[in-house]
Amino acid sequence: MTRTIVESKSKTAVIGFDEPFCVIGERINPTGRKILSEELERDDFSRVEADAIAQAAAGANILDVNSGAVFSNKMAEDPRYADNNFVEPMLMPEMIRRIQAVTDTPLCIDSSVPGALKAGLEACEGRPLLNSVTGEEERLEMVLPLVKQYNVPVVAISNDDTGISEDPDVRFAVAKKIVERAADFGIPAHDIVVDPLVMPIGAMATAGLQVFALVRRLRDELGVNTTCGASNVSFGLPNRHGINNAFLPMAMGAGMTSAIMNPVALAVNQTKIAEKKAQVMAAGIILPDDIDDETFVTLFGLGSTLPRPGKEMEAIRAANLLTNNDAHGGSWIQFNKVGATAGEATSGRRGGRRRRA
Amino acid sequence: MTRTIVESKSKTAVIGFDEPFCVIGERINPTGRKILSEELERDDFSRVEADAIAQAAAGANILDVNSGAVFSNKMAEDPRYADNNFVEPMLMPEMIRRIQAVTDTPLCIDSSVPGALKAGLEACEGRPLLNSVTGEEERLEMVLPLVKQYNVPVVAISNDDTGISEDPDVRFAVAKKIVERAADFGIPAHDIVVDPLVMPIGAMATAGLQVFALVRRLRDELGVNTTCGASNVSFGLPNRHGINNAFLPMAMGAGMTSAIMNPVALAVNQTKIAEKKAQVMAAGIILPDDIDDETFVTLFGLGSTLPRPGKEMEAIRAANLLTNNDAHGGSWIQFNKVGATAGEATSGRRGGRRRRA
Repeated sequence: MTRTIVESKSKTAVIGFDEPFCVIGERINPTGRKILSEELERDDFSRVEADAIAQAAAGANILDVNSGAVFSNKMAEDPRYADNNFVEPMLMPEMIRRIQAVTDTPLCIDSSVPGALKAGLEACEGRPLLNSVTGEEERLEMVLPLVKQYNVPVVAISNDDTGISEDPDVRFAVAKKIVERAADFGIPAHDIVVDPLVMPIGAMATAGLQVFALVRRLRDELGVNTTCGASNVSFGLPNRHGINNAFLPMAMGAGMTSAIMNPVALAVNQTKIAEKKAQVMAAGIILPDDIDDETFVTLFGLGSTLPRPGKEMEAIRAANLLTNNDAHGGSWIQFNKVGATAGEATSGRRGGRRRRA
Repeated sequence: MTRTIVESKSKTAVIGFDEPFCVIGERINPTGRKILSEELERDDFSRVEADAIAQAAAGANILDVNSGAVFSNKMAEDPRYADNNFVEPMLMPEMIRRIQAVTDTPLCIDSSVPGALKAGLEACEGRPLLNSVTGEEERLEMVLPLVKQYNVPVVAISNDDTGISEDPDVRFAVAKKIVERAADFGIPAHDIVVDPLVMPIGAMATAGLQVFALVRRLRDELGVNTTCGASNVSFGLPNRHGINNAFLPMAMGAGMTSAIMNPVALAVNQTKIAEKKAQVMAAGIILPDDIDDETFVTLFGLGSTLPRPGKEMEAIRAANLLTNNDAHGGSWIQFNKVGATAGEATSGRRGGRRRRA
């Protein structure tokens, strides 16, 4: 059975057909997260460190580290900063060093800049996952030698020089090409984790069925592990968590073995607190003057201002149990003991509905 | 594509490969629900009526009506009441008449007593689902003629005279035998809804994988719709809803087309309200004297004292979307508009994680 081994200095994460689902925390990523870019530009790594700790605590098995920051101020002074081939090879190793100092969770080095991948590989202890190679010729030729040289596993995204095909057969063919090309470099299939690309279900009604069928084929025909950017599936639709919570178990049922996702529940923000306080006071309830935010949101069932595992983590652990990857339900029982899902009442009334005469 | 048609006087429910998942509400069942047995013994059908209305409102497509009551007081006076062959043929038609008077949701006539099935078929308008036949010889010979005579679909449970096999191949063989025997009576496969029997995952670690594989085979090889007592899978484990919420989408991904389940969220009870009030007061919060229970539980995020759809209904609707059985996401958007899942905050921040240079 296929197993992909990812390691930090002291800890191992296994992505595998007969393993609990591997959660790759996506939070450390300045792409489209402007506040993080600005902090990194000021050499402020506090949020990176906090995100590393919070994701590991929430149950992430691997932490993705993306260095795709845009340094707007610096580029105004020095045009070289406009080029990510200049910025990321400096930034990536520093991010990795900071993260390795606060957690021993294995890392995933994520960049579109080959120089950043190489610098990350130099800085990273253990056996990180490399993210990513695609079916694009130039990228194959640049990334696969690094994969071979550093003996690391790699995420393979199933797009090529023609872009992302809407045809799942084409995406399968691209994945097959990458696996074959890797073999030419002496890289085994078990070190390739294919991302079949999840389309938004709101834009393509067959997106879910496509992925489930693709994952099954990738597993059966190529023998590779799989991953995806899980939250893409719900893009543009209301109650995205509700969709993601169903998608992940379904993908796991089809054989998907990892996902790049946010393991941490969204913290309750000040706007939400203020709204609730207004509601509460309108109902004639009197709050003590000194009530702190965390006490308030906990008592009023809003969640927490502190990091805690998201609902998706519950869905994944339940699906681990249902795919026979949680022997004797030990992890499930432990997960529910710590009160991570204290929210809803649990019915225990009915043993089985078929008790008959 | 297989379609099973179930009808009330004015409404149709379709169980089918290319249909939204069919939810069969399980609540109207005195088996193991002593309070309901006692009420029925006193000719009090108020809970039956309320359960019918609540389940239909929560989104049940079909309502199961089980007449397996035990009339303890009456049997003390008249020993005939100790025999369900005496009780149920009287009780079933009365339950059906009461339910038909308050809802037009199609019904499922559920009894182990053939006389009750027949009396139910006489009382029921439209085209009810019959629950159930098994692979037991005596039962096949008694139930299949009714199915043929009344031209109704039937639930086929995959146990036989040897009991329930732990071997999924045997359970498949039993289902095949029932389908073949039905064909001898002129009953088509599309009128048979097979229940492959879901074992508790806590007792059998492969229970989930077994069912997913069985459902796929029943669909591909026999062309039949499938159902199950969904909550059985989580029997004996903590946070049963968390397990059921993952199981249902996974079963749907494997091709399951209906389930017998509770569509209504557990109402918040007085114990829970009292506990919360104690917590709230300990935190120095002052409640108005006249705050009513529903306002209180809503404000404090406990859920509701009123019937509302359970979390499983959200999981099913998301899985409908992901299996391309919710064109343009219309049902998903509508479901989330009515605030049925107002609980958790929804992240909309990230379009897709792969926005790269």
